[in-house]
Amino acid sequence: MRTFRGLTSMEEATGLIEEHTGPIDRLQIVSLADALERVLGEDIKADFDVPSRDRSAMDGYAVVASDTLKASSSRPVRLRLGGKVSIGQTPKLTVRRGECAAVSTGCFIPDGADAVLMHENTETDAETVVVYKPAYVGENISVRGSDVKKGSVPLRIGDFITPARVGVLASLGRAVIRVFDKPNVSIIPTGPELTKVGFPLEEEKIYDINSHTLSAVVTENGGSPELRDPIMDDRESIAQAIENSMDSDLIVVAGGSSVGERDLMYDVLSNMGQVLFHGVQIKPGKPTICAHVRGKLVLGMPGHPTSCLSNAYLLLMPIVRKLAHLPPRRLTTVRAKLSRRIVSTLGRKVFMTVRLCEGQAEPVYKESSAITSMADADGYIVIPENTDTIEKGDEVEVSLFY
Amino acid sequence: MRTFRGLTSMEEATGLIEEHTGPIDRLQIVSLADALERVLGEDIKADFDVPSRDRSAMDGYAVVASDTLKASSSRPVRLRLGGKVSIGQTPKLTVRRGECAAVSTGCFIPDGADAVLMHENTETDAETVVVYKPAYVGENISVRGSDVKKGSVPLRIGDFITPARVGVLASLGRAVIRVFDKPNVSIIPTGPELTKVGFPLEEEKIYDINSHTLSAVVTENGGSPELRDPIMDDRESIAQAIENSMDSDLIVVAGGSSVGERDLMYDVLSNMGQVLFHGVQIKPGKPTICAHVRGKLVLGMPGHPTSCLSNAYLLLMPIVRKLAHLPPRRLTTVRAKLSRRIVSTLGRKVFMTVRLCEGQAEPVYKESSAITSMADADGYIVIPENTDTIEKGDEVEVSLFY
Repeated sequence: MRTFRGLTSMEEATGLIEEHTGPIDRLQIVSLADALERVLGEDIKADFDVPSRDRSAMDGYAVVASDTLKASSSRPVRLRLGGKVSIGQTPKLTVRRGECAAVSTGCFIPDGADAVLMHENTETDAETVVVYKPAYVGENISVRGSDVKKGSVPLRIGDFITPARVGVLASLGRAVIRVFDKPNVSIIPTGPELTKVGFPLEEEKIYDINSHTLSAVVTENGGSPELRDPIMDDRESIAQAIENSMDSDLIVVAGGSSVGERDLMYDVLSNMGQVLFHGVQIKPGKPTICAHVRGKLVLGMPGHPTSCLSNAYLLLMPIVRKLAHLPPRRLTTVRAKLSRRIVSTLGRKVFMTVRLCEGQAEPVYKESSAITSMADADGYIVIPENTDTIEKGDEVEVSLFY
Repeated sequence: MRTFRGLTSMEEATGLIEEHTGPIDRLQIVSLADALERVLGEDIKADFDVPSRDRSAMDGYAVVASDTLKASSSRPVRLRLGGKVSIGQTPKLTVRRGECAAVSTGCFIPDGADAVLMHENTETDAETVVVYKPAYVGENISVRGSDVKKGSVPLRIGDFITPARVGVLASLGRAVIRVFDKPNVSIIPTGPELTKVGFPLEEEKIYDINSHTLSAVVTENGGSPELRDPIMDDRESIAQAIENSMDSDLIVVAGGSSVGERDLMYDVLSNMGQVLFHGVQIKPGKPTICAHVRGKLVLGMPGHPTSCLSNAYLLLMPIVRKLAHLPPRRLTTVRAKLSRRIVSTLGRKVFMTVRLCEGQAEPVYKESSAITSMADADGYIVIPENTDTIEKGDEVEVSLFY
């Protein structure tokens, strides 16, 4: 019987994956409303200045700054109110020395004026504005092009589109934008015991869980999952299903990678391409295999739902994000004291799910076949290979699932 | 002229919002593929046990544990190999004393057997299995109902649907699920200077930025934005637009809330309902107003794009999440040293955008009218009301936008 020929450490496994994964090139055109959380596929060059003219940043009066130089609360300066500038219109008046014009926030600055005095520092009647404080040149003026200069490139290819960057695209009037396409990830569940969700369950079958959890992780990390129907776990079916999915950017096979009678993935993948690793020093999730087939990665995940999903966080997520041009995901972490002693496995990194209860981290792991080992958890802790026990009350770092 | 009658602190403002916001009741039915990151609108009760029968957690041999009690490497026990159980089928054989049956991971355990021996602890030929280690009762068996028990409620109304919880729904065969509807948020841009993105820009106009940034924040936090066309900033137009949006769960008006000639929101909102606060001790973002109108919140945001968006993070985000039954968002934070001295404003909390450069936090704030003050940033720091200076090299906590 074949056994794992030396397990690969998680660090080596992620390193091999990193080395054999490159971001995809395909672009897609989306509307501004759909650009959020996508990655820019073009440099955004400004065709005009934002703002297009000097604008007032305040409600107040546009003045000639030098007129107000000597203004003080004891010796105010009086200016003639020459008129009012309406917002959204090109000012028709010019401010001459000794004059001012009422402006509101966002108004264009009329010719002649070089500063805006805040209402708060003035008093006014219908014809005169009394100024109690000098204005400096440029005060309360948003200068033409100060936000985005014509010809500049405020956003670049590869930028992740945040709400603020949606704002920059809007300021330039961009209704459609080129973004990188989402990587297509084929998900192939294997095993004659699987029934598709939505179909009646015969007594000796179980519902396919892994397709849905893998698909969720792909979706959360900027990928586009393509669920295949469950296939038999024999060499021919697996090889055929992988072949049929070779137009995807990544192929994930769930189940069939453990060592034993049903360990077919190694045979299939070593025939099709180069096996990068087979067996990872992690618990749960040891029986994971990864191969490089004609320029694409094929990942074989364990069939146990918790092993499959925990390795989706540790191994699949970084691949999908890199394909999608996304930066590595930083799961939020919190520190908490362990509610009870945990005994770990020396020589394997252990992925232990925990729930946060009254500030304590409570282990909720049942067994790798139980999806509730993950679903009842708020996050997980990783126990290093060289640690066999963590005591009750020890502080641990919890990576949160949400 | 009217001035702000005493600014409200950010803590008071968020407290008032919290007090006047309740989660929405409406439900929606979604497919399993669309359930990710939604909030359950029903208790999920298990109609059957998962697994539905005792299953093997390993590849190996189903045995009667008591037969193996005395097995050791020096004195192995020999069992007759009675047959093989196929996965996905109901076992046809029964394991009698002195016998065993080959099983693979996920197989149902045949009658008579009460433990599974791992391959690794046996040797075998066609008819006999040699056992070198005793098995205990229940070893390597996933007991019927151990993942989800029939009649139990593994997921409850209000649970946030993570990938693992998608897995629980799949294990129970749930193809469609009741989730809470996304709260509808009407977004009303005001100002005659605004042009809708997608239309040509006249020289004296600017593109509407705030609708798109607000809409992005609503989307990121589980809401469904409804963008209205820009309206004039006069009392009648604003009141009418709010009235037309009263079927939304929340109404956000952008612009028109500063004190001055164009300060109309206070008049409109105090006529329609109860103003909760008007003017917040935050910079940028002071001219923000919030009212309670016929059981709904109306939020008036400043017109300056950065003021509008920073208050969307601080004030709008918590409202949308609460309406959507989502837990408060924990933005990821990192600690970094400030790259240069910042002078702040005593008496106002300051929201200062920064970029992370070589481990340092570099302030990128230009002015509140510039959307690039936010777009160029990786996150923000909040400077307390009682701090006027942070020195170069001081450590600050940066909340990351992504």
